[in-house]
Amino acid sequence: MRGSRERESEHFCFLQLDMRTIHTTAELRAALTLLREQGKRIGFVPTMGALHEGHRSLVRLSKQDSDVTVVSIFVNPTQFGPTEDFERYPRTLESDASLLIEEEVEFLFAPTVDQIYPNGHSTHVHPGAIATLYEGARRPGHFDGVATVVSILFNIVQPQIAYFGQKDAQQLAVIRRLVADLAFPIEIVAAPTIREPDGLALSSRNRYLTPAERKEAAALSKTLFLVRDLLLDRHSPAHAKVAGMDEFQRFAPHAILDYLDVVHPETFQPKASFEVSEGLEEPSPTGRGQGEGLIIIAANLGSTRLIDNLVI
Amino acid sequence: MRGSRERESEHFCFLQLDMRTIHTTAELRAALTLLREQGKRIGFVPTMGALHEGHRSLVRLSKQDSDVTVVSIFVNPTQFGPTEDFERYPRTLESDASLLIEEEVEFLFAPTVDQIYPNGHSTHVHPGAIATLYEGARRPGHFDGVATVVSILFNIVQPQIAYFGQKDAQQLAVIRRLVADLAFPIEIVAAPTIREPDGLALSSRNRYLTPAERKEAAALSKTLFLVRDLLLDRHSPAHAKVAGMDEFQRFAPHAILDYLDVVHPETFQPKASFEVSEGLEEPSPTGRGQGEGLIIIAANLGSTRLIDNLVI
Repeated sequence: MRGSRERESEHFCFLQLDMRTIHTTAELRAALTLLREQGKRIGFVPTMGALHEGHRSLVRLSKQDSDVTVVSIFVNPTQFGPTEDFERYPRTLESDASLLIEEEVEFLFAPTVDQIYPNGHSTHVHPGAIATLYEGARRPGHFDGVATVVSILFNIVQPQIAYFGQKDAQQLAVIRRLVADLAFPIEIVAAPTIREPDGLALSSRNRYLTPAERKEAAALSKTLFLVRDLLLDRHSPAHAKVAGMDEFQRFAPHAILDYLDVVHPETFQPKASFEVSEGLEEPSPTGRGQGEGLIIIAANLGSTRLIDNLVI
Repeated sequence: MRGSRERESEHFCFLQLDMRTIHTTAELRAALTLLREQGKRIGFVPTMGALHEGHRSLVRLSKQDSDVTVVSIFVNPTQFGPTEDFERYPRTLESDASLLIEEEVEFLFAPTVDQIYPNGHSTHVHPGAIATLYEGARRPGHFDGVATVVSILFNIVQPQIAYFGQKDAQQLAVIRRLVADLAFPIEIVAAPTIREPDGLALSSRNRYLTPAERKEAAALSKTLFLVRDLLLDRHSPAHAKVAGMDEFQRFAPHAILDYLDVVHPETFQPKASFEVSEGLEEPSPTGRGQGEGLIIIAANLGSTRLIDNLVI
C-alpha cells in the first residue's frame, strides 16, 4: 500500500522513508483506514503550509499524543477574500516537507483544489454570530471558508485529536464551536503562540514585512502585554484600551491599528468589565484553560495585515 | 454497559432484550465505539418517528447490510417553518419502538432537543442551489435544518451506511450532495417508495387526512404515472405536464396542486426536454440508479401538504 515518497532533499533520504506524501483523498482514506483498524490513534495538524516554529510545536504535540500524525498543507481558496493574498500566499512545499520529515511526521496530505472541492460542490458550513465579529467583519466569508474546509478535512482524516494555534484565536473559537455544534468526535487542542525574541507572534505572513515594518510589528505584542498588565492591575478594559492604543501608535507610527479589544474567549463578545479572579492563567496545551478573557489586536503594516492575542 | 430497555409492551418482552433505547449522545457514542472497535459494520436509519412500512423497508435494508442497526427518532425543530406542523407532528414513540423491536433493531436513539443542539449552538450546514428550489422555495430554511441535523447525527452515529427514502427525493439529493461535499465517509442508500394499493406514497403526514382528502390524495401518484407514461411515449415534458395537471384536477377537485415538474434527479433543475434511452429504470436499492429524470409533485389537501415523485 505504500506509495510515492518525498525525495527532494537527498540529505534527508534516510528519514524520508518514514513520511508518505499523499495528494488524493482516496489514497489517504485507504492508508488511514488500515491504521485505524489496527487501533492506531490519529493526530491531525491542518495547515496552509509556509510552516514555521509555531507549526512545529503543533506537530510535536501530535507526535507526543498520537500513534500517527497527519499534517495537511492546503492553501484554501474559499477563506481568502477577492482582494486578499491568495495568489501571493507563500507556497513552500519542499521546505515544509523537510520540516515535517525532521519531526518524523507519518503523512503529509497535500491535496489539489479539486480533491477538496469536487465538481458541483455547493454545501457550506456557516458558523454563527462569532463569524460576524472582528476578523469575520473584516474578511466576509473567511470563517465560512474555514469551517467548511476544516469539516471536509476532518471527515477525510477522521482524527481522534486535532491541533490549532492559539495565535489564530478567533479561528480556534470558530472551530471549537463547529466541533461542539456538529458533534465531530474530535478533541481540539490549542497550542500556545510562539514568539520572536521581540514578542512578534510567528505567522506565515511575517515574511511579507519590509525590515522597517518588521521592526514596528513588535508593537502588536507590546500592546497586548501592556493591556494585560493594566487589566491585572484592575484597570477597566476601556482605560486599558486607550493606554494600549497610545502605546501602539508610539511604537509603530507607520502602522494602522484596526482593532484592540477585550473579548470573551469563546464568543468574542466584547467585555466591558473584567474581573481578575486568580491572576494570570496561561493557556493550557490541552485546550481546557481558555481563560476568562482574551485581548485581541489587528493592524496593517504596509500591505500586510497581522493579528495577535493574549489569553488572560 | 447495557442500560435501560424498552418495557412498554409486555407481549414483546422476549425480543426487547435485543433493543437498547438511548437518549443521550454520550451513551450512544460509548456503546457504538465498543462495537466499532470490534469491527462491526453500523447501518443508520434517521427518522422523525411516526414509523410506517416505508421506514420498515429502510430498517430491513440496514439489517441485511450491517452488523448493527441504529434508528434515530428525532422530530427536528429546525427543519419546520414557523407556520408548519412541528407541534402537531405525530409522536408515537411506543408504537415506533414496537415496530423496531419486531425488526430486531439493536439501537433506538431518541435524543432530546438539547442533546442535538447544545447550549449556544450556532453552526449550520447550508446546501447550495438545490435547497432554493421546489420544497426549499416553499419551506425556507427547511433543507438547512435537514443538512445540519443529518450532519450532527452522522457525527454521533458514524455509520458506514445510511438509508433514506426515495419518497423525499429532494431531501435525498440534498443529502447525497452533503455527503459528497463535506466528504462524509458514509454510503447513502435510497429505498424505493412504498405505496398504498391506490398508489398513495406512505408518509407520516397521511394520518392528517380526512376520509375525503385521503381519497383525493391518490391523485398525486396517478398524475406521476400518467406523466411518466407520456414521457416514455416521447411526449415533451411541457405537454406531459399539461396533461398531468388536468388529470390531477379531475381526480382531486378540492386539492390545490403546488408544483408538477420534470427535473434532473441530482440538481433538481427543470428539464425542458427528456430523452428516453432504455425505457423505465427502477430506482436501485443500492442508490446507484438515480435515473435520468425525476417527476416531482406537491399538493395541498386541506391543511396537509403532500409530496411524491417518480424516477424515470
